[in-house]
Amino acid sequence: MAGDKIRLGMVGGGRDAFIGAVHRIAARLDGHFDLVAGALSSTEEKSLASAADLGIPRAYGDFRQMAIRENRLKEGIEAVAIVTPNHMHAPVAKEFLRRGIHVICDKPLTSRLFDAKTLVSAAERSDAIFVLTHNYTGYPMVRHAREMVAGGEIGEIRVVQVEYAQDWLSEPLEKTGQKQAEWRTDPERTGAGGATGDIGTHAYNLACFITGLTLESLAADLDSFVEGRPVDDNGHVMLRFEGGAKGMLWCSQVAPGNENALAIRVYGSKGGLEWKQEDPNYLWYTPLGQPKRLITRNGAGAGAAAARVTRIPPGHPEGYLEGFANIYAEAAEAIRAKRDGRKLSGDVVFPTVQDGLKGMVFVDACVKSSRRNGAWVRV
Amino acid sequence: MAGDKIRLGMVGGGRDAFIGAVHRIAARLDGHFDLVAGALSSTEEKSLASAADLGIPRAYGDFRQMAIRENRLKEGIEAVAIVTPNHMHAPVAKEFLRRGIHVICDKPLTSRLFDAKTLVSAAERSDAIFVLTHNYTGYPMVRHAREMVAGGEIGEIRVVQVEYAQDWLSEPLEKTGQKQAEWRTDPERTGAGGATGDIGTHAYNLACFITGLTLESLAADLDSFVEGRPVDDNGHVMLRFEGGAKGMLWCSQVAPGNENALAIRVYGSKGGLEWKQEDPNYLWYTPLGQPKRLITRNGAGAGAAAARVTRIPPGHPEGYLEGFANIYAEAAEAIRAKRDGRKLSGDVVFPTVQDGLKGMVFVDACVKSSRRNGAWVRV
Amino acid sequence: MAGDKIRLGMVGGGRDAFIGAVHRIAARLDGHFDLVAGALSSTEEKSLASAADLGIPRAYGDFRQMAIRENRLKEGIEAVAIVTPNHMHAPVAKEFLRRGIHVICDKPLTSRLFDAKTLVSAAERSDAIFVLTHNYTGYPMVRHAREMVAGGEIGEIRVVQVEYAQDWLSEPLEKTGQKQAEWRTDPERTGAGGATGDIGTHAYNLACFITGLTLESLAADLDSFVEGRPVDDNGHVMLRFEGGAKGMLWCSQVAPGNENALAIRVYGSKGGLEWKQEDPNYLWYTPLGQPKRLITRNGAGAGAAAARVTRIPPGHPEGYLEGFANIYAEAAEAIRAKRDGRKLSGDVVFPTVQDGLKGMVFVDACVKSSRRNGAWVRV
Amino acid sequence: MAGDKIRLGMVGGGRDAFIGAVHRIAARLDGHFDLVAGALSSTEEKSLASAADLGIPRAYGDFRQMAIRENRLKEGIEAVAIVTPNHMHAPVAKEFLRRGIHVICDKPLTSRLFDAKTLVSAAERSDAIFVLTHNYTGYPMVRHAREMVAGGEIGEIRVVQVEYAQDWLSEPLEKTGQKQAEWRTDPERTGAGGATGDIGTHAYNLACFITGLTLESLAADLDSFVEGRPVDDNGHVMLRFEGGAKGMLWCSQVAPGNENALAIRVYGSKGGLEWKQEDPNYLWYTPLGQPKRLITRNGAGAGAAAARVTRIPPGHPEGYLEGFANIYAEAAEAIRAKRDGRKLSGDVVFPTVQDGLKGMVFVDACVKSSRRNGAWVRV
Repeated sequence: MAGDKIRLGMVGGGRDAFIGAVHRIAARLDGHFDLVAGALSSTEEKSLASAADLGIPRAYGDFRQMAIRENRLKEGIEAVAIVTPNHMHAPVAKEFLRRGIHVICDKPLTSRLFDAKTLVSAAERSDAIFVLTHNYTGYPMVRHAREMVAGGEIGEIRVVQVEYAQDWLSEPLEKTGQKQAEWRTDPERTGAGGATGDIGTHAYNLACFITGLTLESLAADLDSFVEGRPVDDNGHVMLRFEGGAKGMLWCSQVAPGNENALAIRVYGSKGGLEWKQEDPNYLWYTPLGQPKRLITRNGAGAGAAAARVTRIPPGHPEGYLEGFANIYAEAAEAIRAKRDGRKLSGDVVFPTVQDGLKGMVFVDACVKSSRRNGAWVRV
Repeated sequence: MAGDKIRLGMVGGGRDAFIGAVHRIAARLDGHFDLVAGALSSTEEKSLASAADLGIPRAYGDFRQMAIRENRLKEGIEAVAIVTPNHMHAPVAKEFLRRGIHVICDKPLTSRLFDAKTLVSAAERSDAIFVLTHNYTGYPMVRHAREMVAGGEIGEIRVVQVEYAQDWLSEPLEKTGQKQAEWRTDPERTGAGGATGDIGTHAYNLACFITGLTLESLAADLDSFVEGRPVDDNGHVMLRFEGGAKGMLWCSQVAPGNENALAIRVYGSKGGLEWKQEDPNYLWYTPLGQPKRLITRNGAGAGAAAARVTRIPPGHPEGYLEGFANIYAEAAEAIRAKRDGRKLSGDVVFPTVQDGLKGMVFVDACVKSSRRNGAWVRV
Repeated sequence: MAGDKIRLGMVGGGRDAFIGAVHRIAARLDGHFDLVAGALSSTEEKSLASAADLGIPRAYGDFRQMAIRENRLKEGIEAVAIVTPNHMHAPVAKEFLRRGIHVICDKPLTSRLFDAKTLVSAAERSDAIFVLTHNYTGYPMVRHAREMVAGGEIGEIRVVQVEYAQDWLSEPLEKTGQKQAEWRTDPERTGAGGATGDIGTHAYNLACFITGLTLESLAADLDSFVEGRPVDDNGHVMLRFEGGAKGMLWCSQVAPGNENALAIRVYGSKGGLEWKQEDPNYLWYTPLGQPKRLITRNGAGAGAAAARVTRIPPGHPEGYLEGFANIYAEAAEAIRAKRDGRKLSGDVVFPTVQDGLKGMVFVDACVKSSRRNGAWVRV
Repeated sequence: MAGDKIRLGMVGGGRDAFIGAVHRIAARLDGHFDLVAGALSSTEEKSLASAADLGIPRAYGDFRQMAIRENRLKEGIEAVAIVTPNHMHAPVAKEFLRRGIHVICDKPLTSRLFDAKTLVSAAERSDAIFVLTHNYTGYPMVRHAREMVAGGEIGEIRVVQVEYAQDWLSEPLEKTGQKQAEWRTDPERTGAGGATGDIGTHAYNLACFITGLTLESLAADLDSFVEGRPVDDNGHVMLRFEGGAKGMLWCSQVAPGNENALAIRVYGSKGGLEWKQEDPNYLWYTPLGQPKRLITRNGAGAGAAAARVTRIPPGHPEGYLEGFANIYAEAAEAIRAKRDGRKLSGDVVFPTVQDGLKGMVFVDACVKSSRRNGAWVRV
């Protein structure tokens, strides 16, 4: 399979980064990619040092230079992973898209709605594939929940409760020199939404992914509880979906005791579903008038959509990296299908640039609504 | 102790009722009350039959008649439990209050805000005690949570997440002749709020009880998901408290898999708390930067406020009836203190008519906000 | 119903006692009993003081005197609750049994196997009813588990895992003057088994109650981990049941973090069951090849046997006291049936003197096996 | 890093296999190994086909041939993963060990105790490293539990409760042609212990790994509940450790509802610990007399030993594959240290051939004890 591996580059993800390492493991886990080039940091010196650390053969000081050179190489990269702060996603992605190099981009799509729109255009003009790593959609039990909803097993959806709570920004960590906290609370780099953009978009994306619903409007009340923080660290949002379903979304980075508590509950006329990211191998299914059922990854009751993205037997827990790797595996499937001129299976459902745009519209609407004292804003 | 027992009457709670039986057990559990009189149903015939079923010595066909006669008896009732549908709380309570008979009234206080205000006046004019059975405040771990917040253990409160979800009205049960569903979805008897009034008031009361916060304004989006239901069966509410804390409140009676899922999470600058009514003997305490701690009823780490209202050692679970009985025990303590001219201990914190008024203001504001498309309404 | 209440006396349960208070609440909770007489302590002075504390009208300094006098009274007690240390169960019970007064006796039956046998004889000679408060059999979900096993829902039983772990004797509490620890670690008063007798008997009784199996033999390894403690504080036991099922039983009072952790799992050829006393409103049912199901007290899937002993809707947790009260309610049902000459329903399944004897045989076999280096001992 | 990767071969793990795929992911996840050669099946044809499936460059029809040739290649494999049925572990391992090729071998060490002893000798004579994949020791929270015990945080150990329950052999699956069930219930290939060897050894290894205790003797009661099965499918074992600690071990493959339920609880004089493989990111720590604490992977309270083997922040769950990969990462660390002539850090604690021998002694003692009617057998 080595000869068949997809040649991958990476922009961002050098020393001090978090999500770059995750992407590298996700790319490696199923053996679909070879990481062969990188522009890992914002300065040439750090870029080269990081590439040396990681044993990446071709190191670049600058992403534009990398795009140009790799495009000319006979065995240049076929895809690039973009793991920079948000404000760099669009400029970097465009350089690769215009050269037909597939893009696997971290979320949220961009820092500004305007950039998101131009990026969508760029992606549409390009023949390359654009994959957005809303990685939580890669969990098998999330896939199963989506399949159950689509199959009508909980009836017509009435209520969606989704939340994503963390506690790591409960204090002004950004003032201590912590790099992650710095850029994620800097509106220039992260965007107008703080928690809303960083994790609220994940929650919103997950709700749409599982339910298949389309948001119609929202009302938001955003706060910055830590003094002097220029972006929100807590967001309360009420949701109205097309067709009449309603929802609540809570995102917070100041909720002590919550590490990475993304959770969703969906209630329909015939039953309910509940899933928690921190215990991802379980899905509660609560058919109305029957005992609650706990469906486990690869266990009895889990269906084909989950089985597609599972590696090991029930009771052998998979986690965050496996879910993330499922997005990479689907990206590989799409890239190979394109390479071979095959039609891609409808089962491949990785998040796209359009999903990314929806996320940016969501953040924009949250910020607008909150500034208008929580007025309902159509999306 | 028999000679010392408080003579109790009951209005409502005959055949087909639910909460009347709960009040009777709660009154009996700690041996503080003797149920000696009752006007248990709306018709004389059913009243007498229900009293005979229950072995209640003095049966009345009508609550007014009962108030008059018991007041004249040498050994007449000292207190009355009111367990009728909501619209009868005010007229019944006033009859007893004006005769100096203490009132233990089920929640919500009334069906209409206007009635609540007149009842507050009546209670203020009376020398009798008024106890509102927001029974969830009687749970030991709720008391402990309140004590921790008051002691500053979670710092300044930022976020409150409270919810009360049920599923028993997921289908139009009220059309099947089920009595509970009938009156609880009838605006004449239950009030303008359906789920909001029936269980949202419990959630709101609990949030205030634990946090000590005062609500400033709210924005609500209420729905009746079951066709033809004239009151809400699902409510989404955003909360703003005085001092800057924010909250979300969800109440629903159409969420399959939720039996009686009242739950609250409170996050402050220094830590968090989490409690669930269905597993009431546990309280999660999550101090920022330390491992989560699970405090158990009467176990290590539980304080004096919880110990006051606990009967048995840790690991021996107490439940709903014990929590309810704690309200009755505190009512007894207050009645005896008044009887003996003693000052009541500050530890006795049962909900009062003022708490009931707050609940009605909450419902009224939810309905108003929802009618105004979720506009913020001051309370 | 007051006139219909059963007149109850109590022996033991004065100041410093634990289980006496539990019996009093259990007797009161459903309104079936009136506690009218007591010999609450081992000295006359303390007995009278305790009775005064509790408002019990007829106080005795001595249980024999109480039996004699109450027997002669026109409205003397019909039943007596025995809540003394174990060594007194037999002498007290015999005094009342011989006078036809029903006995509700705490567990284990006696401190010595010999006494248990004589007590069985006494009970058999008497016309009175003998109820042993193995209270955990009173929990609704335990009843449901029993019903499911009897109905063949888990197939032929293969494996039983039962345990009862506590931590309160992890240190030599008996040397600090704590009364409960003193007598429960004193072989004269508690019997030859420490943890084995105090809580191992509960675990063993529960296993037999749910499975309907009969123990054939056991192999035990008992320890006293706290230095100088003359009875076991930890017991490991392997079980062989008639018909080929096997089991393990663990009881411990030195397992930090365990408050009152009685738990049982039963596995058959078609499915499994799991129940935990500390979360008693839930029963896991795991049919082979299907998703796990969580059955809740009074919720969907719970059957008639559980419904008989439940008071309130699902999601409104019942606890230890309600389970205990169910034994009292069944005792009342049996007493009234006898009073009225009616046949007792087969649904009434409170533990009997025979169950008590089995428990004493179990303790005796454990002690014997352990002394013989864990040899298998037939029971 | 590619140039630095360790060249790995694999024996076993072709089509129809389970654990081979796990080893391949584990070898790949952290980028330490390149799988470049394989003898994947027992027939040449299947071996070559499987290697082609997997893109492994050098395929062999026979493990002996592979050992000989790879040994002669300039860039031949440096290590081999052995993932055959148990009876082949020893003959395969010896071929590679004698040529100085490092061995990463699945558990249990062998099918027969005699083979285990000869394999230990072979490993001792060889300069190569021998790693046994008792993968559960690779979980971060298992490492943390071990560190806490070693640091005295739970005091002197008194009681160990360990269990490993599954349900996949509840019915005679081996008669349906399922390959995994076939060899795992065939004494020739799996060894004298069925569940005991397959999963009991994991449980025993885990107990020793965490506690640091040495087993002194055991008493076992083994059963084959499925008719006609020639090896045990359920084992009950009582344990006595040197120094006086006691334990119970339960292993079962016929316990419906248990997927892969390895769990351990350790109780000492000062506290307790509890860990479950199916929820591996959590460790309960229960210091005596304090509230229970839930320590999370990489969260507050987790120490250096866990941090060494963790990749991502708390709340981002790691699972079975990451734990398994930790063993591979430590194998890589040892191989590189040897390659470079460096001393290996004491933090590297992968299971060794000696641990494998202990496991075989355990199985042998269980079988002996059970045949002697559960007599205590010294190990």
